[in-house]
Amino acid sequence: MGTSVKSIEDPCLRHAPVSKVALVGFGTVGSAVARLLYARDAEHSLQITQICNRRVERKKVDWVPEDVVWTEDIEQVLASDADVLVELVGGVKPAYDWVSRALKSGKSVVTANKQLMAHHGTELLELARECGQHLAFGASVAGGIPVLSGLHEGLGGDRLLKITGILNGTCNFILTKIERTGSTFEAALAEAQQAGFAEADPTDDVDGFDARAKLVILARFGLNAEARPDQVPAFSIRNIDGIDFQYAHELNCTIRQISRAELRDGKLYATVEPALVPQDSPLAFVSGSQNLVISTGEFGGDTVFSGFGAGGNPTAVAVVSDLLHLVRYRAKGTAEPDRPTATKYTVTGDFENLYSVRFVVKDSPGIIASIAAVFSKHHINIDAVFQKSGFPKDALPFVITLEPCRFSKLEAALKEIGQFPFHVHPPFSMPVLR
Amino acid sequence: MGTSVKSIEDPCLRHAPVSKVALVGFGTVGSAVARLLYARDAEHSLQITQICNRRVERKKVDWVPEDVVWTEDIEQVLASDADVLVELVGGVKPAYDWVSRALKSGKSVVTANKQLMAHHGTELLELARECGQHLAFGASVAGGIPVLSGLHEGLGGDRLLKITGILNGTCNFILTKIERTGSTFEAALAEAQQAGFAEADPTDDVDGFDARAKLVILARFGLNAEARPDQVPAFSIRNIDGIDFQYAHELNCTIRQISRAELRDGKLYATVEPALVPQDSPLAFVSGSQNLVISTGEFGGDTVFSGFGAGGNPTAVAVVSDLLHLVRYRAKGTAEPDRPTATKYTVTGDFENLYSVRFVVKDSPGIIASIAAVFSKHHINIDAVFQKSGFPKDALPFVITLEPCRFSKLEAALKEIGQFPFHVHPPFSMPVLR
Repeated sequence: MGTSVKSIEDPCLRHAPVSKVALVGFGTVGSAVARLLYARDAEHSLQITQICNRRVERKKVDWVPEDVVWTEDIEQVLASDADVLVELVGGVKPAYDWVSRALKSGKSVVTANKQLMAHHGTELLELARECGQHLAFGASVAGGIPVLSGLHEGLGGDRLLKITGILNGTCNFILTKIERTGSTFEAALAEAQQAGFAEADPTDDVDGFDARAKLVILARFGLNAEARPDQVPAFSIRNIDGIDFQYAHELNCTIRQISRAELRDGKLYATVEPALVPQDSPLAFVSGSQNLVISTGEFGGDTVFSGFGAGGNPTAVAVVSDLLHLVRYRAKGTAEPDRPTATKYTVTGDFENLYSVRFVVKDSPGIIASIAAVFSKHHINIDAVFQKSGFPKDALPFVITLEPCRFSKLEAALKEIGQFPFHVHPPFSMPVLR
Repeated sequence: MGTSVKSIEDPCLRHAPVSKVALVGFGTVGSAVARLLYARDAEHSLQITQICNRRVERKKVDWVPEDVVWTEDIEQVLASDADVLVELVGGVKPAYDWVSRALKSGKSVVTANKQLMAHHGTELLELARECGQHLAFGASVAGGIPVLSGLHEGLGGDRLLKITGILNGTCNFILTKIERTGSTFEAALAEAQQAGFAEADPTDDVDGFDARAKLVILARFGLNAEARPDQVPAFSIRNIDGIDFQYAHELNCTIRQISRAELRDGKLYATVEPALVPQDSPLAFVSGSQNLVISTGEFGGDTVFSGFGAGGNPTAVAVVSDLLHLVRYRAKGTAEPDRPTATKYTVTGDFENLYSVRFVVKDSPGIIASIAAVFSKHHINIDAVFQKSGFPKDALPFVITLEPCRFSKLEAALKEIGQFPFHVHPPFSMPVLR
């Protein structure tokens, strides 16, 4: 490194000019991107010229060549002759402003920013097209798992109907921890935080907002269905307790945070929520912080992608793959092909599901009868009642499973059931995915 | 359909001219490709102009537009103004000749032909490049699972070190059948043949030649490592019996036909063989005729792709995805970017593995001691001996597991052990993948 013209060793890139790359954001992912670029032979076609970060002094490392400019000034980056801006700061603000201005100033952009792409992806891609630039975002969903390219390229010939995924490693870590140790949510969360798998404020992860942004991106680019994040109901995993796994196992299921988007009856159904999944489903095999996506096509059936959905190196692989793709196409003098315009469907979370409802009550005669009467009034059929022994009478957990019904119907029934005085905790429902 | 200029509904293709497609081979996959093209909106940019097949009269169907030319004459197709030839005849001859001539006559080619790509892929891609045409072959490995595009595009930023897969649905169907029913190989094969999952001559599938061709393609395009199919040892699954699964389960394993390619110590290690895999591995979850590929990258770790690896519709999805990709790039006036030149490594099947060796003997005293002495002489350490009760003395099966050793070392020891007079069947070894 160190001069502006490089020998080019990757034969893919033998005709490619050197692209100047500005890294904006030099945290875990940013430094992994730099390491990966310097470690691969191919990096000689990609030259990091600038690294931009707040309080950049503390970020400096000795393995970056001396001619790289370290800066805290995004204006300097935007005004520079960089060919590509790699945006790794996350969040909508100020990333939206920076990415827009980069595109307008003739730079392509590679981003790992799920919130930015979920909220402004369509608009930014249109802007990139207008500017003759390229906007790549393979790292924004499922880190190192090449699911976006798989859906767009490899399954482009199918008509995709449904996407089901485990998109948040933090939730998966917490849930598998509760399952293995029987601990409470709070204890599992504390452990995830200690292990570096959860943030001090875990809201985005455990309440489903992180997964929802990724689901919106998958719906947009896999199903060609446009949705805003706020249109997709997200349910927290905070209510999950060891007892829920005990009852799930009775049903030969386990519990995962499931993100689903499905085209049906001219609507886009989409939710993020904890759900029971059969123990022999690929969804059940995802443990720790891994991710998994199942796409269902009209012609090709189910295709599964899984691997490391987060972390510095896997995310850096996605960023560098996007960079290499971009450099190859720049070398050919062409931007990426157009993507199909997404359709705006009515978005609803009102799936029809089997349900499992967990109650914790102060025991007294007639509780099941009272609950059953309300379900019956709402035309919801009870499938079975499960009650494990060995729990105290004053906080007795039991589970009722229900035959398929719409979420809206269940919600109305549970609102009424929730009025009964015997509840120790509010009734907690989860869909059972078969 | 029916006119030569089409309205173009796929917004991806709005600037694309109509591409004329000649389908060569109209069996299960060919007719599924046609159905898929007619079913999708996008097909309006892809117009089937010719269908070529032997004894084409018997192939005619009423759902193909009248202006499609049905022919048995490949010369007519090669001389036509078709933009793309879709080669679905399979096998090296005469496909190699037809594909080469199509490229030279200015046609791009989409093929599902694994033998052609395994034997001549590098050469044909070079020819395509010289001719300014595009050669796409996503359907040649794992049918509808977008693994080739995933490795090349989505994981292009990583340095891939290893590919492990279940690449032959017929073997997987037979093995899972033996596992579930305890049947013999012959009975399971007969059932697979009846169900249409195995051919009358099952050699290509059960002896590993089909999987080997796919592995060579994956090594070439995933690991950038060039190998000829005949350099990769392939071992049959014909020796597998119900008893092997019983012993595998003792080791918390199951048995799958595993194709592996790994770069290590400057060599390409590659084999296709039945192997024991842990029951909690993704490889164990693949049942029936599904396929699965695990790629291992230096930076991104393991990524798993799975789904339907064969069958008309999944393979057609891969063919049509390639066609759409090709049309998009034609519309941009550019062929696909260059692929990296593969490196020619020394190719060897001499992996170091844990091994499980199954013996069937006429029982007499001292058998284990005799066998153990030979292993010891060859410096191979025995891990454990498993002997289930209830088998006849004159055909007694038992299993010896071995600590890690090279296959070549095991082979030498087993050659010597095979000389003992007590064998009812020759010793049968399988690696144990941990």
